[in-house]
Amino acid sequence: MEKITILGAGSWGTALAIVLADNGHDVRLWGHRKELIEEINKEHKNSKYLPEINLPKEINGFHSLEEALIGIQTIVLAVPTKAIREVLGQVCKVTNTPLTVIHVSKGIEPDTLLRISEIIKDEMPEALLKDVVVLSGPSHAEEVSLRHPTTVTVSSESMEASEYIQDLFMNQHFRVYTNPDVIGVEIGGALKNIIALAAGITDGLGYGDNAKAALITRGLAEIARLGSKMGGNPLTFSGLTGIGDLIVTCTSVHSRNWRAGHMLGKGKNLDEVLESMGMVVEGVRTTKAAYQLAKKYDVKMPITNALYDVLFNGVEAKQAVDSLMARVKTHEMEDLVNITDLPNL
Amino acid sequence: MEKITILGAGSWGTALAIVLADNGHDVRLWGHRKELIEEINKEHKNSKYLPEINLPKEINGFHSLEEALIGIQTIVLAVPTKAIREVLGQVCKVTNTPLTVIHVSKGIEPDTLLRISEIIKDEMPEALLKDVVVLSGPSHAEEVSLRHPTTVTVSSESMEASEYIQDLFMNQHFRVYTNPDVIGVEIGGALKNIIALAAGITDGLGYGDNAKAALITRGLAEIARLGSKMGGNPLTFSGLTGIGDLIVTCTSVHSRNWRAGHMLGKGKNLDEVLESMGMVVEGVRTTKAAYQLAKKYDVKMPITNALYDVLFNGVEAKQAVDSLMARVKTHEMEDLVNITDLPNL
Repeated sequence: MEKITILGAGSWGTALAIVLADNGHDVRLWGHRKELIEEINKEHKNSKYLPEINLPKEINGFHSLEEALIGIQTIVLAVPTKAIREVLGQVCKVTNTPLTVIHVSKGIEPDTLLRISEIIKDEMPEALLKDVVVLSGPSHAEEVSLRHPTTVTVSSESMEASEYIQDLFMNQHFRVYTNPDVIGVEIGGALKNIIALAAGITDGLGYGDNAKAALITRGLAEIARLGSKMGGNPLTFSGLTGIGDLIVTCTSVHSRNWRAGHMLGKGKNLDEVLESMGMVVEGVRTTKAAYQLAKKYDVKMPITNALYDVLFNGVEAKQAVDSLMARVKTHEMEDLVNITDLPNL
Repeated sequence: MEKITILGAGSWGTALAIVLADNGHDVRLWGHRKELIEEINKEHKNSKYLPEINLPKEINGFHSLEEALIGIQTIVLAVPTKAIREVLGQVCKVTNTPLTVIHVSKGIEPDTLLRISEIIKDEMPEALLKDVVVLSGPSHAEEVSLRHPTTVTVSSESMEASEYIQDLFMNQHFRVYTNPDVIGVEIGGALKNIIALAAGITDGLGYGDNAKAALITRGLAEIARLGSKMGGNPLTFSGLTGIGDLIVTCTSVHSRNWRAGHMLGKGKNLDEVLESMGMVVEGVRTTKAAYQLAKKYDVKMPITNALYDVLFNGVEAKQAVDSLMARVKTHEMEDLVNITDLPNL
């Protein structure tokens, strides 16, 4: 039995707490909303984020970060990417123990263009950071909390840390694989939200499954082009954290990013969409970061650029999608071949 | 304006007739059911296969193959793979003109293990066969007939033939790309039906989107492993005719193979499923062929093997899927790396 604290009591943090509790670990779930933590402790429910689930009684909610971290050497960081720096800053103030940090967030920081593991290294003193591990893959929180079969990948610069985290989470319903390619895993997870927004838009426009499949295919190609140029292994984008996560995010009504895109496709503007969601839509911020990355690395990312124009330049969703579809290109391989045209393959 | 005869008045043949008619060509649609052809000519409907669509009046139905082929140099072969040899045998009896044959079927012939273009070459005398072109991609007939945006790929040993077919079909809603990799295009199109059957089973078992995304990801890996070993370009499997078609077939209720799998997952046996479908389910026959191909080329295809056991060896669907999910493998890359471990990349 290990002691683990999960920071962030949203749907994904709570679902992972269930996995760890099922595996017999001592799980602490920290959140900043007092009423939510009280509900977890008294009623074993998280009605805002996983309304239909009865939580295992072994999950203990904490409102005080200091108390949540007493005796803890392993934390799961399950807060929105925007909040990571602030939460880690607080963590560093209340603990002296070197931590293994598992992050399960998906995003890129605009302007700095750092991946999540880089933000963590940037924010924590070396003495307090034992290892960083990313956990990612096709995994809707709702389904994980229902113990539906799910497979994810963990990745770290330390294989020992990866295997430790693999053992913590692995069970009959929740299969955990390892992959040493941190860059590929993080980039695939972050950028799929952009394609999910775009897929939501085509669905909102009523364009059907053929159009969406084409968009996902082209989306994967542009994610792989950028990710490979950043140093990721091209094969990672064909795996669970690449195409697997992309499929689940683009084809399921569970996905926030798809839902936000769907509203955009129906004609709402970004402010209206974000207001009516009431949850973080990571893909919006990631679109800005990916747009900047495409320029920095000189990679063609037509879907990202089109979405950037819809979100931030007032271009009509229909106009953006139609011009994407009509792009003059007659040879499919031109789009794909760059993926492997790289020294690290 | 070109003269083209489409052989096979099912949903896909009829949808492609609409595309060609929209482009101003002289389109003849041949089918062996007299009442269906009469309905097309008199009421401009195909109520069995595309019940909600009004067909362009320019589409002419033919019941006589001989009449349908008078003055024709280009045919579209849109019959089930099982009927191809018989139909081509009849074609060769009633025409003396060398033909460009576009095939849009998806399958592998069991026992001979021939791809469709190989069957065509096997069945037609050289003097009657000008070129063979395959047209494939994520394209539900229902959506194409509604003029929803769709992208497909054409492939041939002759680039000239590919570009001719590209020009015939290309329009504002129906985008056509070329790819010289005939093997990869045909194998991707055929084998995706196996994964769609398996995806239908997991959905029928109520396993959710996470499980299905994992299955599709693993399915793509096993298609690419076999297809590459057969001489296909690994990149083709990341394109429209690979992952694109796989996604649309696995995630849409339009897909016959998915529907058949869904019934299997609900506990019906193969005979009951095939009877209640009343249409050809290509994936069943393709599973047998792929099972044989995996042995011939010594390629690991766990999903294909599991499905073979369900279809032909009486293994329970739940047992087969559960053992697939529980396969002992901890390093994701082991599964993927073989794709590029090939001389032709």
